[in-house]
Amino acid sequence: MSDLSIYDRQGIGKPLGFGRKCALLIIDFQIGFTREDAFGGFNINSAITATGKLLGHVRPLGMPIAHACFIAPEAPGGIGPFGEKIPSLLTLTAGSPDVAFAPEVAPLPNEFIVRKQHASAFFGTALSSWLRANAVDTLLVTGCTTSGCVRASVIDASAHGLRPIIVEECVGDRAEEPHRANLFDMGKKYADVMPLDAVIAHLALADAA
Amino acid sequence: MSDLSIYDRQGIGKPLGFGRKCALLIIDFQIGFTREDAFGGFNINSAITATGKLLGHVRPLGMPIAHACFIAPEAPGGIGPFGEKIPSLLTLTAGSPDVAFAPEVAPLPNEFIVRKQHASAFFGTALSSWLRANAVDTLLVTGCTTSGCVRASVIDASAHGLRPIIVEECVGDRAEEPHRANLFDMGKKYADVMPLDAVIAHLALADAA
Amino acid sequence: MSDLSIYDRQGIGKPLGFGRKCALLIIDFQIGFTREDAFGGFNINSAITATGKLLGHVRPLGMPIAHACFIAPEAPGGIGPFGEKIPSLLTLTAGSPDVAFAPEVAPLPNEFIVRKQHASAFFGTALSSWLRANAVDTLLVTGCTTSGCVRASVIDASAHGLRPIIVEECVGDRAEEPHRANLFDMGKKYADVMPLDAVIAHLALADAA
Amino acid sequence: MSDLSIYDRQGIGKPLGFGRKCALLIIDFQIGFTREDAFGGFNINSAITATGKLLGHVRPLGMPIAHACFIAPEAPGGIGPFGEKIPSLLTLTAGSPDVAFAPEVAPLPNEFIVRKQHASAFFGTALSSWLRANAVDTLLVTGCTTSGCVRASVIDASAHGLRPIIVEECVGDRAEEPHRANLFDMGKKYADVMPLDAVIAHLALADAA
Repeated sequence: MSDLSIYDRQGIGKPLGFGRKCALLIIDFQIGFTREDAFGGFNINSAITATGKLLGHVRPLGMPIAHACFIAPEAPGGIGPFGEKIPSLLTLTAGSPDVAFAPEVAPLPNEFIVRKQHASAFFGTALSSWLRANAVDTLLVTGCTTSGCVRASVIDASAHGLRPIIVEECVGDRAEEPHRANLFDMGKKYADVMPLDAVIAHLALADAA
Repeated sequence: MSDLSIYDRQGIGKPLGFGRKCALLIIDFQIGFTREDAFGGFNINSAITATGKLLGHVRPLGMPIAHACFIAPEAPGGIGPFGEKIPSLLTLTAGSPDVAFAPEVAPLPNEFIVRKQHASAFFGTALSSWLRANAVDTLLVTGCTTSGCVRASVIDASAHGLRPIIVEECVGDRAEEPHRANLFDMGKKYADVMPLDAVIAHLALADAA
Repeated sequence: MSDLSIYDRQGIGKPLGFGRKCALLIIDFQIGFTREDAFGGFNINSAITATGKLLGHVRPLGMPIAHACFIAPEAPGGIGPFGEKIPSLLTLTAGSPDVAFAPEVAPLPNEFIVRKQHASAFFGTALSSWLRANAVDTLLVTGCTTSGCVRASVIDASAHGLRPIIVEECVGDRAEEPHRANLFDMGKKYADVMPLDAVIAHLALADAA
Repeated sequence: MSDLSIYDRQGIGKPLGFGRKCALLIIDFQIGFTREDAFGGFNINSAITATGKLLGHVRPLGMPIAHACFIAPEAPGGIGPFGEKIPSLLTLTAGSPDVAFAPEVAPLPNEFIVRKQHASAFFGTALSSWLRANAVDTLLVTGCTTSGCVRASVIDASAHGLRPIIVEECVGDRAEEPHRANLFDMGKKYADVMPLDAVIAHLALADAA
């Protein structure tokens, strides 16, 4: 373990806190990511379960909910270099069983679907515009993988001027070390990392106010 | 150390290789990042030296060169949540000594300057358009920090359809662990990570051809 | 008619010409735009017919082909202010008969589908990335409406560093005056406007070379 | 004049109205655009005068103010195809007299500067992020040219989920016909077009409330 105290000495990693209005973003909880022999592993399935619990709390509040899913095009060129690094992504075309949403966190009609072809749920999608049309300034982030699409989406959320709050038990990865390392990076630079219970308690309190 | 063999079992991390035409991107080698009491630390200064060496090889080849620098606006709102996580970024306004480029890697006239307000050198900049106007498909990436602006830029380079090649000795961070963890992530998902000597040898060969 | 000679005096409107590799973009030729009582009018149907003819020429050349279609989300907030200006756009949800592609220009499997929620085929889509992954630098533009989604897409194509070439008979609008005014603007600032025959002749020549 | 009643029959062009919080965007009121022998003409100078009047009203309200200016890079590739259509744009490099802001509407310290290389004030800039960091949902648009950078910026403002309100006397173009045609298009599809007096009256009322 290297000495990470330099972050504190440089004043990096202050808390953001909640803004005026939250939305929930769920990233890539698709069947392929539930399977360790495909794209899954480590704590992804427990993160899906935890996200199902969070969904149960936010749906009654009328919070805007967005579900991102990765779908590769079949056209030549596909997803470019991303598909050369991870060739199996090219199997995730529309209609393949692995692209379906995991049932515990599947979208209801009237929830926003974000079809994406790259890691970030913001890149090449209308997510940012839709969040602004809903006056959202704070984004609860869940999904997988922590070191992949979650990290990319959190960087973009911050760059777009949104406050990202990562719900800790609700993000998962295929291996523990990248999961931990990326929670560290994101918590220092772009987002707050909060336990599920604290998020639920905050929302209940805000809703009662 | 968690078991990372799952990446191999899932076929993640294939090499990209070079495309038809390279550009060099140098990220945030600004005075503030050379100082450990400001934004620097660990291997950033050695990465600047190594990048100076690389520059000496690519300038005679006529390779397009882009220099990204972070400059915060003085207007209210500033850089949004990014400035709340890292308040000292707000001191990096135009004209402050810390925003100047490090002398060893300072731009020549006619090299492209990317002024940015967020982590990625692509976000909110004309970098992607300029690279296309120059028919570039491969991006040699250098700069700092590996876990911050380099990581964000590499994700975006891949998403924009470019081949990112990270020149290993030419990227630096304020602490070793995030540096290593982010090289791992990027090498698995978005980019090739190549030693400086191998990059220089490839370019010399390609130029001779 | 105002005096437009100022454009010539200021040197505005030079020709771009073709680059190294073309793709074809077809914008919003969906059933709703074939119907004058929905989104159609003036010359949209003749533009569809002309685009069908162009497709017949470019498919055998193996040219990358992208089909953009507007599909509104059902989630609250929808498409934001765009849907407040043109409320009927909100009826164009997935599965509605009006969103289907016009049969003469319907995509083949392996052609790239661009689902969009705003005017530009580039905004909030992966089109730019896919074009780069295919090394495209020149974009043949067809579709409707000239003053709406075609204009927005052409501005963005230029900004992304691509050469837009508008195939004159292949773009259509619901009324003649905006059609003419927007061809003028685009031809002066962002794109070449070429007759269908000239485009076909150029492609035949380039293919024979 | 073609029959434009089809817009009404199709329900196109409903008013947006003001949202909760406004910002003012001033586009490209730079010296080169005040000169008819460079980039100016028709009503650009009167639009600058009118915008000066509007500035006098909004500054005391503390409204966020953004000033966009076009500055071409000197690097090879420049601004790509945009510079091939309008070669004189390439003279607008940093430091040239024509890029300076017109004195009547020059930025104060702490107002946001948007340096852009393409037509839209949003493309390749951090404007959208800054507006969100300031909780802005409504954008008063002024500047030049109506048929160029104003049109491109208004399309993007709408796509980003913002309500664009074009202040009629505050936008100008080099020729009358494109000015009128583009006000028509924007008013039908993306923005409200309001007289300066009505905007000032609304703001005074909102401020008193």
